[in-house]
Amino acid sequence: MNYWNKRLTAMTEYVPGEQPDNVDRVIKLNTNESPFPPSKAVLEAIGKEINGNLRFYPDPTAREVRELFAAQNGLTPESCFVANGSDEIFTLLFRGFIEPEGTAAFPYPSYSLYYTMAEMNGIAYEKVGLEKDFSFDLKKFLKRKYQLVILSNPNNPTGTYCDPDEIRRFLEQFRGLLVVDEAYIDFYGGSSVELVREYDNLIVTRSFSKSYSLAGMRIGIAAADPAIIRGFWKLKDSYNVNRLSIAAARAALADAKGFNYNRQMVVNNKEYLEERLTALGFELVPSRSNFILARHTSVQAKELYERLRERGILVRYFDRPVISEYVRISVGAMMHIKTLCGELEAIVGGE
Amino acid sequence: MNYWNKRLTAMTEYVPGEQPDNVDRVIKLNTNESPFPPSKAVLEAIGKEINGNLRFYPDPTAREVRELFAAQNGLTPESCFVANGSDEIFTLLFRGFIEPEGTAAFPYPSYSLYYTMAEMNGIAYEKVGLEKDFSFDLKKFLKRKYQLVILSNPNNPTGTYCDPDEIRRFLEQFRGLLVVDEAYIDFYGGSSVELVREYDNLIVTRSFSKSYSLAGMRIGIAAADPAIIRGFWKLKDSYNVNRLSIAAARAALADAKGFNYNRQMVVNNKEYLEERLTALGFELVPSRSNFILARHTSVQAKELYERLRERGILVRYFDRPVISEYVRISVGAMMHIKTLCGELEAIVGGE
Repeated sequence: MNYWNKRLTAMTEYVPGEQPDNVDRVIKLNTNESPFPPSKAVLEAIGKEINGNLRFYPDPTAREVRELFAAQNGLTPESCFVANGSDEIFTLLFRGFIEPEGTAAFPYPSYSLYYTMAEMNGIAYEKVGLEKDFSFDLKKFLKRKYQLVILSNPNNPTGTYCDPDEIRRFLEQFRGLLVVDEAYIDFYGGSSVELVREYDNLIVTRSFSKSYSLAGMRIGIAAADPAIIRGFWKLKDSYNVNRLSIAAARAALADAKGFNYNRQMVVNNKEYLEERLTALGFELVPSRSNFILARHTSVQAKELYERLRERGILVRYFDRPVISEYVRISVGAMMHIKTLCGELEAIVGGE
Repeated sequence: MNYWNKRLTAMTEYVPGEQPDNVDRVIKLNTNESPFPPSKAVLEAIGKEINGNLRFYPDPTAREVRELFAAQNGLTPESCFVANGSDEIFTLLFRGFIEPEGTAAFPYPSYSLYYTMAEMNGIAYEKVGLEKDFSFDLKKFLKRKYQLVILSNPNNPTGTYCDPDEIRRFLEQFRGLLVVDEAYIDFYGGSSVELVREYDNLIVTRSFSKSYSLAGMRIGIAAADPAIIRGFWKLKDSYNVNRLSIAAARAALADAKGFNYNRQMVVNNKEYLEERLTALGFELVPSRSNFILARHTSVQAKELYERLRERGILVRYFDRPVISEYVRISVGAMMHIKTLCGELEAIVGGE
């Protein structure tokens, strides 16, 4: 017999980028992970927590992490929520903050998880097209009275961006809930997080999976008005973030030096990759993130994706309108960028 | 403005047992954690995973853990789901497997999370009373056509139990979904997990928080027909269990010796605690778990709870019908049991 309910049956599954069994054997440039390990200080801090206290439940709201994040971002700990990856924030958002009859709007192209989660929760949504150059025109999100708007900023998979002044102008007119997903903000800065103090309908989310090199630990943070944060706490599972992830988050936030070092390396590598790709005949969407959306003037994206895959290099290809001409390439270590560009040269030059 | 939806606003929050800030300064016998640390093999295995690979996302379905658990329980890996604590299993169960208009039945008294989660998801439920001695009469769960029944087995907070033969007889007649929550099964055995092979409407859940001393790592497993497991995978967040929790689960399942040693110690301590409590004038509910539900013939439970708390000893008191006469005491280390019994003697003897 089938025991799925209607919603589970009807929903479209979110398909994340491929996670190969042995990450050491491929060049993995498909899910925007950091090419650099977490800093030594972070690894040591996690190691220190591996002791008999693992038998105790973790702190339900990861207070120490909230205190650090709040102090660094001009907020109070009561306006911060620590989650099992920012995925958990989005799941709770859709479950607890939007009525099933509500309407939402998300940019297109953008992070497809938003669309999936809306469907999963029976929430009607519209895709609001980005401009031709993939920039945002936020006025379009005011055309109807949406209960929820989510902006990925910088936007995944385009790398395009809107600055806090634009977000502020939008908030002056928007009456629904605005979520600004800042998973990729750290590389070039320009966060809207401080607006949380002024607008009670703004949620800013962060991820430790990219700039903090901790995708394997599952840590996300939401900043919002305390009334919203209390809702997250009420709805979440009691102990959503485990002891070692709490230790990792705390150490990562405390280690500004290690963080800045890795971030700068990613930025340097990204700029090198941009030069090389341009020289190889690629058109690039200007990116403020750790990935580049690129299309080649003569070779189709799908072919590029497949031929790189045969050579053990994973990049992301999206078989969807508007972006099916592009591949999204995560910024890797210099050695991997060089291997990638060598292979690309063979593919695009050797037709 | 208020941005909570109706369901979030209406739901009753689940209140877990108190988690004091410094677990080393109190005697914590209130949330059924193990008094013993995870085995050395488990701690070492986690330590080995603290490396640069933490920058990569974890395996979305924790295949290696499923393979081990399946092999140990006569199942296939396709019938196992690994979760961020068994809390996550229950959350997904209520979201994806029961229609909002469905009806559910749970024993009373039992783990109050079931009631909370049903409310959270708008599912009507009935509390089916246990017998006077807190034993189960499963026939009562057949009186109406429930879409979902959850049995905590052994039952929290009573420690009472029904064996696989009773469960099988029930399944022969029950057409809804039966969940057997075996968070506490390891201490005295008698699991129903093998029935999963025969009944496609049975889900058996396990926790690593008690017998495996890993409450801080958040690991739960569900065993069920592959069609149900596929539903869990479809609905869950992409990377629900992090790399170190996967490593911990794998090592814990592989270390039979460490596991059995800790389990036997808990059983020994529990039997000692039972003797001491009986000698102090307590009536005990016969328990097959790592906790004891006890009431004293002359001192009220609430007073016991409060006076122990003043002395830095946390036990659980439930201000609810039927069980408000009792305290639930987790089985602790021998030193803590002796301290507890000394204080109890002062309280119940010194009236």
